[in-house]
Amino acid sequence: MTPGIVPYRLRTADEYLNSLRDSRRVFYRGEPVSDVTMHPVLGIAVRHAALDYEMADDPRLRDLVVAEEGYSRYFKFPTSSNDLLKRSALIEAATREGKTLVVLIKEIGTDALFALHTLAPQLGEPYASRIRGFYEHCRDGDLAMAVAQTDVKGDRSLPPSKQPNPDSYVRVIERRGDGIVVRGAKVHTSVSVNANELFVLPTRAMAAQDADYAVAFAIPVDTPGLTLIASPYLGAAKSAAEHPISADHKMAETLTIFDDVFIPWERVFLCGEWQLAGDLARRFVEFHRFTAISYKLPLVDALVGAALLAARVNGTSAASHVRDKLAWLVSYAETLRALTHHAAEQSRLVDGLAVPNTLLVNIAKLQFAQGLHDAFRAVQDIAGGLLVTYPSPEDLDHPQYGAAVNRYLSGAGGVEGAERLRVMNLISDLTTGEFGGYQAVLAVHAEGSIEAEKIAILSQYPQEPAIAYARRLAGLV
Amino acid sequence: MTPGIVPYRLRTADEYLNSLRDSRRVFYRGEPVSDVTMHPVLGIAVRHAALDYEMADDPRLRDLVVAEEGYSRYFKFPTSSNDLLKRSALIEAATREGKTLVVLIKEIGTDALFALHTLAPQLGEPYASRIRGFYEHCRDGDLAMAVAQTDVKGDRSLPPSKQPNPDSYVRVIERRGDGIVVRGAKVHTSVSVNANELFVLPTRAMAAQDADYAVAFAIPVDTPGLTLIASPYLGAAKSAAEHPISADHKMAETLTIFDDVFIPWERVFLCGEWQLAGDLARRFVEFHRFTAISYKLPLVDALVGAALLAARVNGTSAASHVRDKLAWLVSYAETLRALTHHAAEQSRLVDGLAVPNTLLVNIAKLQFAQGLHDAFRAVQDIAGGLLVTYPSPEDLDHPQYGAAVNRYLSGAGGVEGAERLRVMNLISDLTTGEFGGYQAVLAVHAEGSIEAEKIAILSQYPQEPAIAYARRLAGLV
Amino acid sequence: MTPGIVPYRLRTADEYLNSLRDSRRVFYRGEPVSDVTMHPVLGIAVRHAALDYEMADDPRLRDLVVAEEGYSRYFKFPTSSNDLLKRSALIEAATREGKTLVVLIKEIGTDALFALHTLAPQLGEPYASRIRGFYEHCRDGDLAMAVAQTDVKGDRSLPPSKQPNPDSYVRVIERRGDGIVVRGAKVHTSVSVNANELFVLPTRAMAAQDADYAVAFAIPVDTPGLTLIASPYLGAAKSAAEHPISADHKMAETLTIFDDVFIPWERVFLCGEWQLAGDLARRFVEFHRFTAISYKLPLVDALVGAALLAARVNGTSAASHVRDKLAWLVSYAETLRALTHHAAEQSRLVDGLAVPNTLLVNIAKLQFAQGLHDAFRAVQDIAGGLLVTYPSPEDLDHPQYGAAVNRYLSGAGGVEGAERLRVMNLISDLTTGEFGGYQAVLAVHAEGSIEAEKIAILSQYPQEPAIAYARRLAGLV
Amino acid sequence: MTPGIVPYRLRTADEYLNSLRDSRRVFYRGEPVSDVTMHPVLGIAVRHAALDYEMADDPRLRDLVVAEEGYSRYFKFPTSSNDLLKRSALIEAATREGKTLVVLIKEIGTDALFALHTLAPQLGEPYASRIRGFYEHCRDGDLAMAVAQTDVKGDRSLPPSKQPNPDSYVRVIERRGDGIVVRGAKVHTSVSVNANELFVLPTRAMAAQDADYAVAFAIPVDTPGLTLIASPYLGAAKSAAEHPISADHKMAETLTIFDDVFIPWERVFLCGEWQLAGDLARRFVEFHRFTAISYKLPLVDALVGAALLAARVNGTSAASHVRDKLAWLVSYAETLRALTHHAAEQSRLVDGLAVPNTLLVNIAKLQFAQGLHDAFRAVQDIAGGLLVTYPSPEDLDHPQYGAAVNRYLSGAGGVEGAERLRVMNLISDLTTGEFGGYQAVLAVHAEGSIEAEKIAILSQYPQEPAIAYARRLAGLV
Repeated sequence: MTPGIVPYRLRTADEYLNSLRDSRRVFYRGEPVSDVTMHPVLGIAVRHAALDYEMADDPRLRDLVVAEEGYSRYFKFPTSSNDLLKRSALIEAATREGKTLVVLIKEIGTDALFALHTLAPQLGEPYASRIRGFYEHCRDGDLAMAVAQTDVKGDRSLPPSKQPNPDSYVRVIERRGDGIVVRGAKVHTSVSVNANELFVLPTRAMAAQDADYAVAFAIPVDTPGLTLIASPYLGAAKSAAEHPISADHKMAETLTIFDDVFIPWERVFLCGEWQLAGDLARRFVEFHRFTAISYKLPLVDALVGAALLAARVNGTSAASHVRDKLAWLVSYAETLRALTHHAAEQSRLVDGLAVPNTLLVNIAKLQFAQGLHDAFRAVQDIAGGLLVTYPSPEDLDHPQYGAAVNRYLSGAGGVEGAERLRVMNLISDLTTGEFGGYQAVLAVHAEGSIEAEKIAILSQYPQEPAIAYARRLAGLV
Repeated sequence: MTPGIVPYRLRTADEYLNSLRDSRRVFYRGEPVSDVTMHPVLGIAVRHAALDYEMADDPRLRDLVVAEEGYSRYFKFPTSSNDLLKRSALIEAATREGKTLVVLIKEIGTDALFALHTLAPQLGEPYASRIRGFYEHCRDGDLAMAVAQTDVKGDRSLPPSKQPNPDSYVRVIERRGDGIVVRGAKVHTSVSVNANELFVLPTRAMAAQDADYAVAFAIPVDTPGLTLIASPYLGAAKSAAEHPISADHKMAETLTIFDDVFIPWERVFLCGEWQLAGDLARRFVEFHRFTAISYKLPLVDALVGAALLAARVNGTSAASHVRDKLAWLVSYAETLRALTHHAAEQSRLVDGLAVPNTLLVNIAKLQFAQGLHDAFRAVQDIAGGLLVTYPSPEDLDHPQYGAAVNRYLSGAGGVEGAERLRVMNLISDLTTGEFGGYQAVLAVHAEGSIEAEKIAILSQYPQEPAIAYARRLAGLV
Repeated sequence: MTPGIVPYRLRTADEYLNSLRDSRRVFYRGEPVSDVTMHPVLGIAVRHAALDYEMADDPRLRDLVVAEEGYSRYFKFPTSSNDLLKRSALIEAATREGKTLVVLIKEIGTDALFALHTLAPQLGEPYASRIRGFYEHCRDGDLAMAVAQTDVKGDRSLPPSKQPNPDSYVRVIERRGDGIVVRGAKVHTSVSVNANELFVLPTRAMAAQDADYAVAFAIPVDTPGLTLIASPYLGAAKSAAEHPISADHKMAETLTIFDDVFIPWERVFLCGEWQLAGDLARRFVEFHRFTAISYKLPLVDALVGAALLAARVNGTSAASHVRDKLAWLVSYAETLRALTHHAAEQSRLVDGLAVPNTLLVNIAKLQFAQGLHDAFRAVQDIAGGLLVTYPSPEDLDHPQYGAAVNRYLSGAGGVEGAERLRVMNLISDLTTGEFGGYQAVLAVHAEGSIEAEKIAILSQYPQEPAIAYARRLAGLV
Repeated sequence: MTPGIVPYRLRTADEYLNSLRDSRRVFYRGEPVSDVTMHPVLGIAVRHAALDYEMADDPRLRDLVVAEEGYSRYFKFPTSSNDLLKRSALIEAATREGKTLVVLIKEIGTDALFALHTLAPQLGEPYASRIRGFYEHCRDGDLAMAVAQTDVKGDRSLPPSKQPNPDSYVRVIERRGDGIVVRGAKVHTSVSVNANELFVLPTRAMAAQDADYAVAFAIPVDTPGLTLIASPYLGAAKSAAEHPISADHKMAETLTIFDDVFIPWERVFLCGEWQLAGDLARRFVEFHRFTAISYKLPLVDALVGAALLAARVNGTSAASHVRDKLAWLVSYAETLRALTHHAAEQSRLVDGLAVPNTLLVNIAKLQFAQGLHDAFRAVQDIAGGLLVTYPSPEDLDHPQYGAAVNRYLSGAGGVEGAERLRVMNLISDLTTGEFGGYQAVLAVHAEGSIEAEKIAILSQYPQEPAIAYARRLAGLV
């Protein structure tokens, strides 16, 4: 598309919903899901994702959501620190709209596109053109994208080609004139049930004998042979009063099975170039960790705000130990924000793309991951036992004793029991139930584990200048 | 009852269930509960509590469950470290039966009885006789007991008598010839819906003007004017496969409202003696914290065992960072056990009762409370992302793709996917869902908050010998 | 001075040394020090401070050291984030020259000047002109400055005017036509023995009755009535081999006694305006904390570099637990750097001066302070027991067994024992001896205590937006 | 010796000192030391060690110091938990006398004797008789013993026999009819300069090809070919006022070189039995870690006491953050004490010897090691900046300004400056100078590193019961 001739058009939420009504093979608790948009559980994930399309209609957000060129800002190749800061701000804003839950249907896909783009020079043709073409396809179609990276892995001490089950990593089982056929399974695939396109990327570095496992491609979600088995986690119905976030917001993860799926060549971005598998895996993760630390900000803000609010309604804002915990929470949140923004400011150009400072990104991700459970404890400490002993909304409205409940549970400063309980329910949703647990496990495992982040930090730190300074101090020069 | 004449008899589980079918006024989500034993949610709590009565039938446990005198060991006044160790072992064993959830229907009540017993000399007559009589009533009837201590408190910066709402703490509103009338509300009252008797204790120290609030008593749960509003927390139906603990085990907490409840004098144990209110509150908490650290042991054992098991099925037992986290978990669990047992060994006699070393009890409780969230993080780290992305049991059984799911998710050492997922579900139940959150909030708040434990630690530590040693080291003597 | 007419001239190190040979009243271990530059202990502090003047001669550093206007960059009023980044870079570079020890003779004084400058509008005339004049005096004379802020304080629970000893805070005891007379004492006054000018600032907020204590001024260090009692800490002679840093680098702190010292009016910057005492104290500390986090960077870099170097010479760089600790150290150091630089980038203008983001400055300071002891532990863990059992340099050179010592203590990769021991001595100097202890106590107490930083963090965090977001999430809007 | 015939006699301190005046080859800073008792630095270590002999004269301590049989209690084989508790109490008492510094001249040697004793059945004859005979020799002679275990190790990734330098571990270079000849070097050998006998033990498990390195023996310290090179660490002269502990108390560590040292057979306890080398190394360390956690108790007590005292003289005992830190310190200290005592209570018999619970011993050691730096930070935080800026004792006594110093630095409750400074000096000695650093490095490395303790914890924990419980909870049985 030539800018200026036919303007880009963002899809509406309805167009997005309609686009998901295809022949995709989705199962939930063993039952086939004929229309994900209408499913009682997956439909929540769909509507959560539709926020992305609704945001463009919000005049306060439009400049952030729509790039100068007219397409969704997610697709804008960052070429400066400022672009990265805006991308981060967009991810943060969308997650705030999502009530601390990332939307992800464009974030993760563009992370994959950026990673492929920066490797295009090494991949060469015809890969480079295919990548460019597919990028334009997604951008111009304003598509929702998922990324399947983590293989089921089998025995973790063995490389892909040495596994007892040769399908433990997704692999090419046939090369044909018109494309390839792949087999295997990926786990933890987020937003796949409500995406239009599914990226598949390798999950690790490969050796020569793993060449069949060095494969990357993208396919429509309704491609034959692809089965999405959605996790039932967080699938129970919830009342909005007691679960103010998770009643209406969720993501769905799938076990994603590739049962001899055919991929036409124009959708294949890596096939056998084992030397680049690790680079692609890492590059994607690096972009994606910047996305991650951007979308963690509303969560940490919510924890700080909820703790401040709980202290206020409990009348304990002046208590020394409460203030101590609040100061810790603020430090935790604002350190994450500063590292995120500073990583953008300290970007470097890689093949024309601004890449956030990967050392700082990994440090931010590590600090977030290592502190979230402590943050939960601090917030729970400030909130109090009502988090798990609260009466129900029905009790508050009870004709006989509702007024008494409201009065007995009233808080400081004339706050009624009903309002105080809403604060407790928010914190309970954030920290004590499945939503909190989901965030906690994501903190530890998503976008690379804590240990992976440590490895990245040590590898990306410029060791020699530090050693040289130490040697100079030791009188060894 | 004179031992040797009429032998004690423990109740059966059925007798216990029958005893709960009375006119108690219980509400769940605004609906009156006519029979708690048949209620879909509260019935789970009832059956969990019935474990106490079932254990006496287990020949492996009988010696632990039944005291030498023939009554339930919970009622045995500890007079030696050995008695305390056995009581701790009984609490631990019952909680193991309860799948890491404490049973509590005799633990907490006997903690209150012990506290009253040790204060009987100060309370004098007729209180002392009433306490003795009520103790025998509970013991001989093998009764289930709840304790309501925490008042709703209102403005926490004000004492009871200065509250805007005079009912923010339970208080005596009338003294009559045959008894007293009380009004107010207590929160966080555990096992009240399935207890026979409800203790009410003051929650803090009082001043002279708070005399009306210095009140302690015990009443049958079906006493007129008493309303129990059960919390809906953890009330959603759960499948046993995905929630192997919480599907069948729960406690119920209530907001407990005293709407001008009449208490006959023989059930009143404190009424106006404000000088003793704080002592009673503290003494109860001290006994109860020993109960608490005893019943935490199965939970920490389960976390260690689950982490070891997860490492095994994931094939990561030899990974250095996994071993590091396992060593931490073991240290956490075994330090708690050592402190608990050593606190019993270091008991002192108070009016004939062996009281565990309160300094060590509080340290144990504090260390448990401050470490549980870290333990969750460690276990989640070892387990992996499947904790929140697992497929459902229905998927495993699916005729079309169930076998593939089982194979793709198989673990190290030939462990099938189904088995690996059961481990994930256990850890998910323990750490990422409402049950984990319940345990986490209990860790921080139950039996006194983290801050209360710190205060107790500092007050119970013998400061002067330590200062004297420091002065001697400093050359100041 | 009009730029372009008479160029600014920086002083030489010799000129600086000569300037300290005056009638200042300095005592060391009870002995009067007639010439601080020749004193065996204080002379080390003097030569360390002289680094400031030597740096201007280093062509690699000159652009950093000398502002565009020709004077020392320290005196440049920052008016942009870039100015702050350069100031930070200068402080970092000087501290690197000082082998991780801050030079401070201009850093702290200009912090005081900046604080006074931003308060000049509130102070009004004649204060504003005096401040401007004194600033030019210091800048044009390229002077070394100390700041005495912390009073001896007496009973910390009482304000200045209520102290049993009325001199517990420095106070005005007489107002005369030509100036004021002050009395009292300040502690922890750094670089006073080798400064030209001594600032005195209030240490806390004051009330109306404390007006006599609301006093700020600056005087030459040889002003009559001023006594500087230098601390003997770190005063023992050290060999350069065993203490590669502290043998040649030190600061000197004094107990600074004002024995009815006369201050002419033109040097008085606050006198009785108690409403501004707290603002001045805080403003100074805020500027000074930015100095602090800038000068901590070489120390954390040295810890990282020393740990990397120790792992290398010990042959343990690949050990998993060593890598874990190294990753932690890198995160610690680079988080501090990122927060420092981002605080500069997020500056705001206050009366024309760029003030670093105080929330981030305080978070940086807190994170540094809370982590340094852990960093010491990590570095000691990696280094090994030789830190405290090393043989002496004389042993390495011994004709009989020196070669054996060298061989037996050789490290990985052919590193000789002598070299490995230099690394151990560096780490010992950094972490196990008085220099390490000095840095540790400075981390906890200098530029405001840990608790003061927490208070600042909570007060500077914009609470209302966070609370508003939490309320929105809770459905309370 | 037959008890009852000739009573055991403990040596006097003078006898001990005389016994050190032999032909031992000791160097300090390259200079030969002809009489260690008269050396300005090593003499301090000698006099510190002499405390062991002086304690028997203290009637308050005699029952603890002298076993029922009449010899020093250190030599008593523990056969019950009570014996272990008394041994622990003796070690604690001696360390208290040593002002928080362990005496060690019998502790460590008897740990080695106990380890050899429990392995005697596997070692068989003639080793068993030799071990028994040497034990009696030490016991009856009331001897001071050192243990050299840690080899210089060379390249840590290689076993002894594969080292580039074959002498990187002490080894047998010749087997003769009358004994063996050994070569190599050990590091970190404590109390060797002032011991009578020196044990040599292997430091790790060995393989068949390492047989020459599987050697254990004991020799008089003046054996020809043995060279002790004392570390200069903590060797500077100190004033008792400023360093109330370390001025008069120290240990000396040596690099211990075996230059073809002949060992007669009756002193050889292991020679080639490589299968037992690891067992001996481990068994010694296990006994020694119990010694270690016993001797850490006075140090943690001193930290608690010093912090309490500092809070008192500073007038900050009621400050909330101070109380928080004090509670942490108390928990730290008393957890260590409880684990230590409980490990003794949970002893098991190994070949007739009561062995403390090794899991608990290692947990205690780990918790101590991981917390000491935090404890230092807490104490420094409570104490204040005077730790490193204090004026000298000479200043306090100064005729001109001494009274002012005393008054200006006075503390709360009428404490004079001089007394407050003694508290600061104590804390400075304990935490900021070389003595504190010595304790810190010992915490991390002595008696096995932090990582070694983690490995021990995981290996000693009974994993299967925990896994079985988790499996049961998961429904997998």
